[in-house]
Order: sequence, then C-alpha cells, then structure tokens
Amino acid sequence: MKFPETFLWSGVTSGVKRSGNPDLALVRSSYPAKVAGVFTNNSFAAAPVLEARDRLRENDQFRGLVVNSGVANAATGERGRRDNLRMIEEAAERLGLEGQDVLSASTGHIGRFLDLDRIQEALPNAVDELEENVESFAEAITTTDTATKIVNRSIPELDARMTGVAKGAGMIRPNMATMLAFVFVDHPVDSGWWQNILENAVSSSFNEITVDGEMSTNDTVLAFAADRPDREPVGFDHVQASAMDEALCEVCDELSRKIVRDGEGATRTLEVHVQGGPSERVAGDVADSVANSNLLKAALHGGDPNWGRVYSAVGATRHDLEAEKITISLDGYTVFDPSEDQRSVPEELKESMSTGGEHSLTVDLGEGDSSARRLTCDLTKKYVEINSEYEP
Amino acid sequence: MKFPETFLWSGVTSGVKRSGNPDLALVRSSYPAKVAGVFTNNSFAAAPVLEARDRLRENDQFRGLVVNSGVANAATGERGRRDNLRMIEEAAERLGLEGQDVLSASTGHIGRFLDLDRIQEALPNAVDELEENVESFAEAITTTDTATKIVNRSIPELDARMTGVAKGAGMIRPNMATMLAFVFVDHPVDSGWWQNILENAVSSSFNEITVDGEMSTNDTVLAFAADRPDREPVGFDHVQASAMDEALCEVCDELSRKIVRDGEGATRTLEVHVQGGPSERVAGDVADSVANSNLLKAALHGGDPNWGRVYSAVGATRHDLEAEKITISLDGYTVFDPSEDQRSVPEELKESMSTGGEHSLTVDLGEGDSSARRLTCDLTKKYVEINSEYEP
Repeated sequence: MKFPETFLWSGVTSGVKRSGNPDLALVRSSYPAKVAGVFTNNSFAAAPVLEARDRLRENDQFRGLVVNSGVANAATGERGRRDNLRMIEEAAERLGLEGQDVLSASTGHIGRFLDLDRIQEALPNAVDELEENVESFAEAITTTDTATKIVNRSIPELDARMTGVAKGAGMIRPNMATMLAFVFVDHPVDSGWWQNILENAVSSSFNEITVDGEMSTNDTVLAFAADRPDREPVGFDHVQASAMDEALCEVCDELSRKIVRDGEGATRTLEVHVQGGPSERVAGDVADSVANSNLLKAALHGGDPNWGRVYSAVGATRHDLEAEKITISLDGYTVFDPSEDQRSVPEELKESMSTGGEHSLTVDLGEGDSSARRLTCDLTKKYVEINSEYEP
Repeated sequence: MKFPETFLWSGVTSGVKRSGNPDLALVRSSYPAKVAGVFTNNSFAAAPVLEARDRLRENDQFRGLVVNSGVANAATGERGRRDNLRMIEEAAERLGLEGQDVLSASTGHIGRFLDLDRIQEALPNAVDELEENVESFAEAITTTDTATKIVNRSIPELDARMTGVAKGAGMIRPNMATMLAFVFVDHPVDSGWWQNILENAVSSSFNEITVDGEMSTNDTVLAFAADRPDREPVGFDHVQASAMDEALCEVCDELSRKIVRDGEGATRTLEVHVQGGPSERVAGDVADSVANSNLLKAALHGGDPNWGRVYSAVGATRHDLEAEKITISLDGYTVFDPSEDQRSVPEELKESMSTGGEHSLTVDLGEGDSSARRLTCDLTKKYVEINSEYEP
C-alpha cells in the first residue's frame, strides 16, 4: 500500500502496556503541515487534549506528533500537564524539531501518570523505525481494539494521497469518546478552510457513532496537510476543494464505521435513522436514546426484532411526541404502524435479524423534516467481559 | 405473616405468559380505599397508565385492582385503551363492583394486545382465590424478577398494617421504569395528603434507582388506604401523620432496594452519593451519568476499583466543573484527590471490592451544598443473556 509521501510513521513498545504490545507512536512530516483539530466535549479533558487545544489556538503549523497508549494522562492535574510537555519536548529533540512543532495525544487508563522513563528510553528506537508506512503507527495507538483501523485513498484530481488512522472500541458515543483519529494528506491547504471541513466531516462521522454511550477525556481528531511548496494550497475557492472535502469526509466516515464494527465485543451493527422530527434537537435526542439503549442493543445481539424497546426508548426522551404518529421499520420491514391493528413481525424480518452483520432501523416521528443518524453495535457478554477485566 | 386486614389478594395463571407462570392478579378492598398514584414520565405511556391517570384525576376512591403480566398493553393505540377498559369491566363484574371502582396495571412485552379471552376465562378463578395473603398476587405481577418483592410492617401508633408489593428488574432508571408497586394500608387517610406523601416517598426511593438507564411505558405506583369508618383518617394535622409517612417512606425505600438487588443479572449494588454540587440539577445529572455508566457497572462487576470511569462519567455531563476540586471515594477509601501526586488504590479497597454485595461511591464536586443519591447494580453477562433472549 502507498501512503501520503511526505510523512513518516512508526510504532514501538515502551513497556507502559503490561501486555508488551506496541504503545508509543511517532509521526514526522517532511514539510510543515497545516493541522486542524477537533477534541472531546468532556469537561475533564486530559492533559494532551488541553495542550493540543492551546497549541492549535496559537499555531496552525506542525511537523511532528507523539502518541502513547496504555495511559490516558487524564485526572493527572498539573503534573499531567508537565509530563505531557516533557513527552513532547523529548520527542521533538529526538526528531530534530522544536518543541513547539510537535503535538501529542494519549489513550488508555485514566488516572495514571505517564511513565516518562520508559517513553524516553523508547524514543530513539521510535525515531529509527520511522518509515513510509502507517501500519506500526496504527498498531501502537490501539488499546482494546481487535484490529488496526486504516483508511487509505488517493485524490487523483490533486495527485495526492490521504490516509486516516483511528483507534477506539469502547467508551464511544456521539461527540467522540475514547477515540483518536489522525488524517494525513500530502497536499497543502488553507488552514481556516481545513479546520472547517474537518469539523463538518467529524460531525457526520465520529459524532454519529456510539458503542456504549460513554464520552472519554481524551478524544482527539487531528488532520495534517503537508505544506508542499510545489503545490497550490486547497481552500474554499480552489477548483478541487470538493475533491479534498469529499476525501476527508469519506476517510472519516470509513474510520468511524470501522470503530463501531470493532466496538468492544460487537458482533452486529445497527444504523439508526430518525426522520420526521420536529427539530434537529429532538431527532438527535431520539436517535441517541435509541442507539444507547442497553435493552435494544442486547435484543440486537440476540437477533430479536424487539421494536417495543425502540418505542419505549423514543418515549423515554419525554419530548412532546405522539405515539399515533410514529412508525418504526427494521431492515426495511415496517414493524410498528399505529394505524394498523396488527402487531406481528414478518417472517422475512425474523430471518433477516437472525444473521449477524449490518442492520438498519428507521423511526419516523411524523412531525416535521428534521432527521438524525447514529451508528451503533450490539451489547454482548464479551463487552462485559472486556470491561470487567480491563487492564491496559 | 399478617397483612393489612381489609384487603384480599390473588394471583392465577391465565396463560398469557408462555411459561405458564401466574400472570393475572386481583385485589379487593373491603372498604372503599383512598388511592394515590405516581406514573411513568415516558411520553408513550401504556393504556392502563393513561386510564389510571384519568381515573385518579376524577376520583380518589376505589375498591379493586386488576394487574396482568406478560403483555404491557403499550404501543397498542385506541384498541389498547378499549382492551384495558374491558379488562377492568370484566374484573369489576366478577368482583361484584362497578367498573369505575376498579384500577388496572400491566407489565410485560410492549406492542402486544391483551389476550382478553384468556383473561376473561381466568377471572372467576382469580376471584375464588382471593385471600388474606399477598404472596400469590406478588408472584403474578412479576416478569423477569427472580424473587417476589414484599415489604410488610405494622404501624403500632395507628394499630395498622402496611404492605408494599413491587415488580421490576430491568428497564429501571431514575423516574421509574418497568416497575409496578402497590402499597396497602388498613387505615383511612385524607386523600390530598396521601398523594403528597406518596410523591415524596417515591422521589426518594423508586426515583433514585437505576438498573440499565431505561424508562418504561408502564411504571405505576398505587397506594391504597382503606376508608374504615371506625377510624379517624390520617392527614396533615393528625397526631400520627409522621408515623404513617415514615411507614410509607420505609416501605417504598425497601421495595426499591429489592428491585435493584434483583436487577437483571445483578450480583452487586452500588449506592452513588454526589455531594458538594452547585445545584440539585447538576448533582442529579452527575449521579445519573455515573450510575448509568456501562463501563463503571462492568468494572463493579469485576471488582475493579476503576475510579477513572467515575471521573470520566462526571466530566461527560459537560457541566462547568473543575477537575481540581472533585474527590472520589469508593467503599470509604479516597481514590482520587487532585491535591495528591499519588494515584494508587489502597490494598484494603481492592480487598473490599473483591467481594460481592453492597458497595458505595461518593463524588464530592467541591462547588456547593447540593447532593443526589442513586442506587444501581452491576452490568453482567447474565443481563445480556436475559435481554438478548427475552420472551415473556
């Protein structure tokens, strides 16, 4: 596979993860890169999130990124901020960059301090391992993920390549949870426009997925666009603006689907569409309530077309909705139509639900034109197992 | 056991539940009884809830109650309302009462119509079985409960007895979920006062429990107080008002604890206390967020003192809270104090968490004087099993 040609990546083992799996990842950009970022809404954002937010407010150009997994560096107060700065400074020095040129991200256990000794010791190796391949990097940023998540595509209109890498499996809900995603493109951009299209891409991808209704302290999406002097930056009025925008949306969308498919313990996914809402807010609340319902997610796991749990979850939003107006369909079959005196589930649907894979649910509120979408997965015994025995 | 002497109860099998377990329950009061009621907040309340709400608005005195389990009579529209009325009328006739003297409640599968033929056929038997014992009644109102839930006590100051009966195991969250609770006392009351103290008792008991964050269409609490002509009704200025109030609060509190202990698949309970909140609303939101966190509930199951998940759930409320001000304790041991540079978990706590039973969590927000309490249980594989294979 060919990746954007102006970046180098690596991932190595520092020993922070007790499993001995790779846990320290580096990126070096050959050119300064314009960086756009979107971060968690959790009030208790982790140290690297606070730092990256500050840095992006002051600067839009960076050349390096250091990511550690195993320790989230959250709930670590001032010491966490200092530790994060030291990780950045050490990485910058090893990469031959200034500290201000480097960003960082962390994921893992909340409430543990970074093991700076181990990280420091592993950095020279991480620099040595830098290569034109994102795979080791993708592996080193994972925690409970069962697979790496990489989306790679070309943008022929710009003769450019774009690669996205993400991690995340649990603690996922709308507005991003324990997930990190990094996008790299070997083409320059206007930074205001870049931030703008990233926010749009995130809102219709990572912000529409939910695994368990949890919102983490560390969610971060960073998009790096190499400032190559030989090319014209893509911005609002560039002839290929839509090609770049489309590529970014597609990469974010595909990464977010990979995250849900790899939801902790997940065996099935469910795409929830709410339509006919009286407002965006109500449609969104209904979609959240349905997509986060443990009962529905357990029924999905068992292949039970239990639309009563959908109905109850819609009503649980307490919005002023009328039961007589809503309709519910599962995998394209209408299961609830209030005008009908029958409440039977078609045999074809039972069959369709009996198989794993991707399922869809549509709730029409019969009130207006607003809609919302969420992508979720089933709730399984494996989820409980993973999260009652989690040790990063 | 001796129960309030002015009521008769029964529970029989009509055959609505495929298991063949009892599913039809009756109560007959020897005297007209003052009835207070509190109902679900779900926008899509079930037919019996809509009917009981209407009846309690127009009347405060009833003599009979019919409850069916297996079918919730929710998502059943106008036909559901008619079916429910027919169940009430049939029960009234068999009990020798007027239709207007009888209330009803239903619990079970959403979206199925009542099987009136079976209910009609079983009613004579249910009347024959009426007895001075609540146990068959308590059994017939259960669904996924593993045990009946009965609280029985005397009120010596009034020479009275009070009995509470509840069902509920899943779909439980603050503001009542799939739960029914009925309280009976063989002493008259003033009905305005009775409604008032019931609302207070519910708000500090049933409204503070959560099993899975679900809110059902059928939640109902009804409290019956026999209007015996030989006794002075208890009201606001009665010398024994507080004895009656206390009894009602205790009965509701004990029933709500029984529900959480019997939460679907539950092996442990956790009492969440939030204090130091800037307002009741923020304290309540934080308590909800923590008590409904799947990750925390899975950690509780595994005996993992994973306070990082508490920290993240507090921040996930997005309220304007400062991480530097909050402290977290588990089973009485401080696990997070931002002023300390240590994040280690005491060995004694690990030991305490390694055993099942009742655990406690306190989150101090360090902002004010408001507090909130929730009682929840662990998330287990058994919960997933029950809810991926549910068939009432």
